[in-house]
Order: sequence, then C-alpha cells, then structure tokens
Amino acid sequence: MLDICLLGTGGMMPLPRRYLTSLIARYNGLSILIDCGEGTQIALRKKGWSANPIGIMLFTHYHADHISGLPGMLLNMANAERTEDVLMVGPKGLQRIVESLKVIAGELPFKIRYHELSEREEDIPLEGGYIRAFKVNHNVTCYGYSINIERKGRFDAEAARSLGIPLEYWNKLQHGQTIEDGEKIYTPSMVMGPDRKGLKVTYATDTRPARSIIDNAKGADLLICEGMYGEDDKLPKAKEKKHMTFREAAMLAKEAGPSEMWLTHYGPAMGKPDPFMPMVQGIFPEAKAGKDGMSKEFVFEDEVVSG
Amino acid sequence: MLDICLLGTGGMMPLPRRYLTSLIARYNGLSILIDCGEGTQIALRKKGWSANPIGIMLFTHYHADHISGLPGMLLNMANAERTEDVLMVGPKGLQRIVESLKVIAGELPFKIRYHELSEREEDIPLEGGYIRAFKVNHNVTCYGYSINIERKGRFDAEAARSLGIPLEYWNKLQHGQTIEDGEKIYTPSMVMGPDRKGLKVTYATDTRPARSIIDNAKGADLLICEGMYGEDDKLPKAKEKKHMTFREAAMLAKEAGPSEMWLTHYGPAMGKPDPFMPMVQGIFPEAKAGKDGMSKEFVFEDEVVSG
Repeated sequence: MLDICLLGTGGMMPLPRRYLTSLIARYNGLSILIDCGEGTQIALRKKGWSANPIGIMLFTHYHADHISGLPGMLLNMANAERTEDVLMVGPKGLQRIVESLKVIAGELPFKIRYHELSEREEDIPLEGGYIRAFKVNHNVTCYGYSINIERKGRFDAEAARSLGIPLEYWNKLQHGQTIEDGEKIYTPSMVMGPDRKGLKVTYATDTRPARSIIDNAKGADLLICEGMYGEDDKLPKAKEKKHMTFREAAMLAKEAGPSEMWLTHYGPAMGKPDPFMPMVQGIFPEAKAGKDGMSKEFVFEDEVVSG
Repeated sequence: MLDICLLGTGGMMPLPRRYLTSLIARYNGLSILIDCGEGTQIALRKKGWSANPIGIMLFTHYHADHISGLPGMLLNMANAERTEDVLMVGPKGLQRIVESLKVIAGELPFKIRYHELSEREEDIPLEGGYIRAFKVNHNVTCYGYSINIERKGRFDAEAARSLGIPLEYWNKLQHGQTIEDGEKIYTPSMVMGPDRKGLKVTYATDTRPARSIIDNAKGADLLICEGMYGEDDKLPKAKEKKHMTFREAAMLAKEAGPSEMWLTHYGPAMGKPDPFMPMVQGIFPEAKAGKDGMSKEFVFEDEVVSG
C-alpha cells in the first residue's frame, strides 16, 4: 500500500491558507518527502503524519519555496526521535546547500547521506521498488520524480510441482533465491509468473511541459503536476518563468495518460483553482485540483477491497 | 504613533494554529521586526501588513524557531520591492548565520548591514528614539529589546516672547536648531520644556527571569514576555531549559511595573493559555495572554483621542 499526501499546493510563497507544494509518500514503514518549503512541517503536523519515518528527502531544485522549511523539518524529525540515516537526493549543490542551511539546526541525532543527481535520468533503489529522478525544464536544473513500487508475478505451484521442486524450496524461490540441490539448480524464473502491475506516482514541478514528464507519467496511477497559472492568457508569462498553465498540464496529462492527475503549485495570485477545472477536465477528465492535505491510498489492483 | 503586532505566540515549533513568536512594530514609516521563525512571513501576510518597510530586524538569538523564516522573509521583502538597506541586529555570529541562510535567497535588491552585539547593553539609534538591546539569561547568548520613542518638551511661547526671540526662529528652535543672530544666540533649551513621556515597548524571550528585564521594562507601555509553561510544577523544567513559567513572568512584571504585559512563546504542549490567566492576573492584573496577530496602537499620552 502506498499512501500519498499533497501537503501543500502553493508556489513561490506560503499563504495563510495554502502551504508550499510538497508531497509525502508512505510505503512499508518508510516515508519519502518531496520538497520542503517554509511551513511544510506545519502542514505535516496538521495532517497528523509523523516526521519520524522520513528516510528519503527528494528535492526538485533549490529555489527557496522548495527547501526553506528544511532546518525546521530536520529538527522536527530529531524531536520525533529519528536516529536512522536520512538519504537526500537532488541536483548538484545539494550537500553545500543543506550544510549551509543546517547552521541553525545544531547537532542532529541522525546522519544525512547525499545523492547528487547529474544524469538525465537516475534510479534510486528502494526496498520493493525504486525512485526514478528525471530532468525537467525550468530556469535552473530541476528534476521530477517517480516513486515506483514493483510487484512480482504469482508463484506458479503447478509449474513447481511438474518440475518436481521439493516443497521446502518454494518459499525461498518465491523470495528470489536460487537453490542448488546437488546437481539440480532451481531458479525463481522457473516458478514465478511475469511481474504484475505495481504502483507509480509521478511528481513534476517546476517545469515547462517536457517529454521526460510524459515518458515518466505513462502508466502512472497518479501524476502530480504543476499548474502555476489558470488563465490561458498567462501562457507568455508561463514560458518566461518556465512554468505551466493549467491547459498545458492538461494536454501533457492527456498525452501521458496516467490514471489520475492532481494539479498543484498555484501562483500566489490565483484564488481558488476550481473555476478552471471544467476546461482542464474537458481535455483530461481524470484531473483534479490539488488541495492542501489531499491524500489517497493506492493498493495493488487485485488487492482492492470493495466496500 | 507606535503600532505593535505580536505575529505569533509559539515557542520551539510552529503549529497549525500558532505561528512562532515574533513582533513587528511600525513607527514613522519604518517597520522593526523582532525574530523571524518559520512561518513569520505567513503571519505577516495574514495580518495584512507589508514587508516593504521592514528596515530593522532584531534577533534575540539563533535557535531555529527565532530565525528559520529569514530566507523567506527576505524574498518577501524583495518581492514587496524594498530597495533600501536593512539593518540586522543580534548576538555575535549574526553575519555568519545570515549569510549561510541566504544561500537559497539569491541576489537581493537591498543591502544588509550587520550590528553584532557584544556588550550587556547597547543602544541602536532610531529617528526619534532608540532601540536598547539588553542581555537576558538563556542557554545561549540571548538579548531582549526595548523600542523607545522619545518625545520632546512643549514649546514655551511665553518664554520665547519674553526673551524677545523673533517669530521667524520659533520653528527652527522647536526642531532643535541653535540660532545665531548677530551677537545673540538662541538655543532650543531656552524655549523648550522638559522632555515629555515617550513610548516604550519591551520584548524578552527566551530567558529566565532577569534583573535586566525588570530594569528595562520599568515605565514601559507594554512588556512582551515569554511564558513557556503555564503550570507551576513545570518550574524545574523551566530552570533546566532556561525559560519561565507564567507565574515567574507575572512576578517579574509586578516588580517592573509596565502598563501592560502580554505573554508569549508558549510551549507546544500548551493548549490555550487562558486557564492560567486568573492566576497570572492575581499577581499582575494588567497581564494578557498573547494571541497570534494581537495588535495595539500606542499614542503619546496627551494625544489620546477619546472616542
């Protein structure tokens, strides 16, 4: 099960009723935080999710609205008694910037490890999946991220029986181990069906529409995509500032075809995003206007429990 | 007129309904900000006061809850098109810490000047008054501040007439100029009465009760004082963490005798401070529980306009 919460939906500056854009994902006891602007720790507390399990922090880029809340969040994690390492991932400059901001965070009870991105695409391993970082198109180096949870195929008991594999090896094979039994070698591929559909959530901000987002959001259960401006006539401004209009985000989603898209990173001049949504949904029906604290649980498709 | 707003009342960490402790004062077109924790820019926006006139930023000390909002506030000021210099005042280390935090603030359209405090008491000049910084007693070097607005005496027209001072010099003398007219010298002291009561607001957090606070809050129109803990039985914790209980703040106010005291910097474990106020007011009747966004206009005593 993958739990997703959009902690805030604001771009550029935090507002009284709109925290800065940030995502938290919970999977298998681990929390992954994407971006941490000023106030993200407050949004997390408001949601009621703990800061203790945050083991991975992903940064899209280092404009203040995406990282200014880091010192407070680190203290918050310390306060929640985290002691395990934290992996931080982001474009080049990560360690220099984080160490600089840490000047007011004192001694932390956990170690920070840094992974600085330099390729167009990079995969960060995760127990049971991986995170894919992919370059997007902003006025500074900026990355989007897909959280991929993989799902192995079914164990084929009939195949195992017909191959005469002893029962005691079944569980090990199911868990990916290769077994040598005298002269016989049993491999997982002998008894495991093809990988089944996993879960994927893709996150892209701040950026112009980009091929990398379309490629990465293909087959995603959810695309969280920036939409800085609602009005079509803000397109020149979107191009200049390297952001997107709602229409552009909708077109991009239409091409990528995720199961769902949530818009976020609204400009401070935007009131409610809702009036623009009929236009957006006319292009991509599965679009929603992201709201602060909006969350969803994603489960593997054959594990859906119908109420 | 001196406009005071307590932007937040929280200590240690910002909460969904309680911003971190910070004060903003407006006087004569200048705004003075004391402390700037995470979220202070949001609290300021909520109050509806502009960030543009912030010309002086005073820091009590550099624990994150008092300075973590600085990068965002600087960007906010830049966004509000401030171009005039900003004076920052705080204990030693100020420049190193601010320059370190500025790593995510980019190029700012105004210059920052630094005044690092090293004495027990220091005065920072202000047009029409001065700010007094005074050392308090925390677990790191920490200062309180008094904003003092001075008021000259009345112009004594009778004295001017009886001294035969020509009418054309009256205004200049009133504005502090000395006049030489042939062999005659006219000085302001010839025609100005004694200085009248000005305005004073004193701010003290994070600290144990201290003689310096009592001395500085004497005659103040308002003392804003920390109260981390409401319960008397938290006294040992207050001593250990170098904070105050409400009772200690009340005793301190009773000794100093300001016209009014507002409590602030409540610990995150405190719900509403109100249940403790009868006890506090039993000791110092002019005490109020500070609330986020609480503000008051202070005018010179004979300028009070009765409604």
